[in-house]
Amino acid sequence: MASASSSSAATAVSPTPLLRDELDIVIPTIRNLDFLEMWRPFFQPYHLIIVQDGDPSKVIKVPEGFDYELYNRNDINRILGPKASCISFKDSACRCFGYMVSKKKYIFTIDDDCFVAKDPTGKDINALEQHIKNLLTPSTPFFFNTLYDPYRDGADFVRGYPFSLREGTPTAVSHGLWLNIPDYDAPTQLVKPLERNTRFVDAVLTIPKGTLFPMCGMNLAFNRELIGPAMYFGLMGDGQPIGRYDDMWAGWCMKVICDHLGFGVKTGLPYIWHSKASNPFVNLKKEYKGIYWQEELIPFFQSATLPKECTSVQKCYLELSKQVKAKLGKVDEYFNKLADAMVTWVEAWDELNPSGKESAAALNGPAK
Amino acid sequence: MASASSSSAATAVSPTPLLRDELDIVIPTIRNLDFLEMWRPFFQPYHLIIVQDGDPSKVIKVPEGFDYELYNRNDINRILGPKASCISFKDSACRCFGYMVSKKKYIFTIDDDCFVAKDPTGKDINALEQHIKNLLTPSTPFFFNTLYDPYRDGADFVRGYPFSLREGTPTAVSHGLWLNIPDYDAPTQLVKPLERNTRFVDAVLTIPKGTLFPMCGMNLAFNRELIGPAMYFGLMGDGQPIGRYDDMWAGWCMKVICDHLGFGVKTGLPYIWHSKASNPFVNLKKEYKGIYWQEELIPFFQSATLPKECTSVQKCYLELSKQVKAKLGKVDEYFNKLADAMVTWVEAWDELNPSGKESAAALNGPAK
Repeated sequence: MASASSSSAATAVSPTPLLRDELDIVIPTIRNLDFLEMWRPFFQPYHLIIVQDGDPSKVIKVPEGFDYELYNRNDINRILGPKASCISFKDSACRCFGYMVSKKKYIFTIDDDCFVAKDPTGKDINALEQHIKNLLTPSTPFFFNTLYDPYRDGADFVRGYPFSLREGTPTAVSHGLWLNIPDYDAPTQLVKPLERNTRFVDAVLTIPKGTLFPMCGMNLAFNRELIGPAMYFGLMGDGQPIGRYDDMWAGWCMKVICDHLGFGVKTGLPYIWHSKASNPFVNLKKEYKGIYWQEELIPFFQSATLPKECTSVQKCYLELSKQVKAKLGKVDEYFNKLADAMVTWVEAWDELNPSGKESAAALNGPAK
Repeated sequence: MASASSSSAATAVSPTPLLRDELDIVIPTIRNLDFLEMWRPFFQPYHLIIVQDGDPSKVIKVPEGFDYELYNRNDINRILGPKASCISFKDSACRCFGYMVSKKKYIFTIDDDCFVAKDPTGKDINALEQHIKNLLTPSTPFFFNTLYDPYRDGADFVRGYPFSLREGTPTAVSHGLWLNIPDYDAPTQLVKPLERNTRFVDAVLTIPKGTLFPMCGMNLAFNRELIGPAMYFGLMGDGQPIGRYDDMWAGWCMKVICDHLGFGVKTGLPYIWHSKASNPFVNLKKEYKGIYWQEELIPFFQSATLPKECTSVQKCYLELSKQVKAKLGKVDEYFNKLADAMVTWVEAWDELNPSGKESAAALNGPAK
């Protein structure tokens, strides 16, 4: 391939980076992207999609040598027209616009206050490479393997693991973790302002079927073909009664749909270095409604079931939006608005991704 | 307490070991217990229950200074009479007799080919101490915490974890892992004879509600008051068509019951050093029926539900034995025999533990 040989000229002895032509890196930001300097050895071969949040007249500087496209609010409004209402403004939830405009099979998304972490031997961690490994190997959601990821070098399925389940299922999502500043809510930040995560847990594991988890959008990768239309980060920020639940919302919807369609979700490695805790007082204001609404959301998602006619992510997502309206609308009017935005999101997704063949194709077997 | 002060005289500056008077160490064996020498600093303060397997005329030597009681087959027959039929012979499954005769609240059981492992800093791991920590802190089976055990120093619940679930539930079981020889089945042993587990994963996590796992009896602790009567290791070894599924069987029964009663099960730390792989050819002979039966057992346990009248471990276990007979009897006649043995086991348990108040008391709230 011509592109591969031009790449190997540029990177000398390095082989072509994994999935270089099949993955986009999505970054939501309000500032110059100096943080990319530290990621240059790992990210430069890939294409970036930058979603500029807030004032569109501000110019965001991107370090030289990166291949990128940048969208500000004016671009989003122009591209989506009235459907732009489903994309949050003044909130990093706007990142999901990047998922929609990508034409690649895989997405990695990272926050601009996340830096390269070191493993216990002092070596820089190539977070993207680990995410790709996680996505390209199967998941094991139906039975727990006590030695964690059985597909990793030096590991396997332990005694008592059913042989019929050892092929695993396709992996839809890889959720990475954070050293230094842990992803705490505002109350925990207030109570433990000095707590830092220093524990490097050398494991990747599949979140079992039927189990929900708090998905953080800071360091996250997914298979867009398998699960893209479910990765909607909701209505947050400007004009909305809630913030900092964008990734959580996406995670709960996504997990219910993955469980229904038989896809896997992994968490664990890779770590990034999260540099700066956000302001807990500001966070509290954004979160406080979420903190009590959540007590109703979790039972809702835990008991949500999708009918077997829902054979594509889009169908699942639209069905879930109906259930949100029917069951959460009474919690707050906001959920009626959110349910409508979920529908708008899927319509916009299909408009920008007209190839038509939905994500149903994925049901025919593991992705290559 | 007199016993506490005599202990502090013996151990000089050390404080009284955790739960010294509330925990028994159960060891099944066919040989002299030289392996205890390496464990002396950690086990000597505790009481041992040794269950001698095989020929009762053989004398098992126990290193000096350990406080123990030893039961051979003659003792088991004498104590249980006809009910001794539920205790396996020529199989380490006989260890569960030790659980039954203990009068303590907690049990730690370990195989005699397991030695002290070292952590990555080179320090000896006090496996028992870690199990005790696991048992004395709550579990979180209803929602997954991405930073693993939230009760550990330096960790907490992450953003998006429902506040109503942060108290957790009482922990019934702590399942520890193995460095060096991993707990593989015979086919995997045959395929990967040289594979060693060298990965130290610094984590303890709760196995989510509704998820089954392969429980290994090599390095295991549990709260006998909460879950003891469910820890029956089945009919294995001499005269039985199957071996090496004793701990698996106990683990699946136990997990279904813990899920029903709201108790937690943890896996991860501590590691022990597993010294010697058992013979894969012998193992294959013991396992081969289990390997195909298991394909029916797992769906059975995954779909097993207990009625709400089952408010004690005993009631749950008897109900499960009925379901085993009804649904697995057709897989093989063995399961009818096993279902009967499950009933005998509970009867024997109640005979030896007449205090009566079942494990129902546990339902009134978390253990102290």
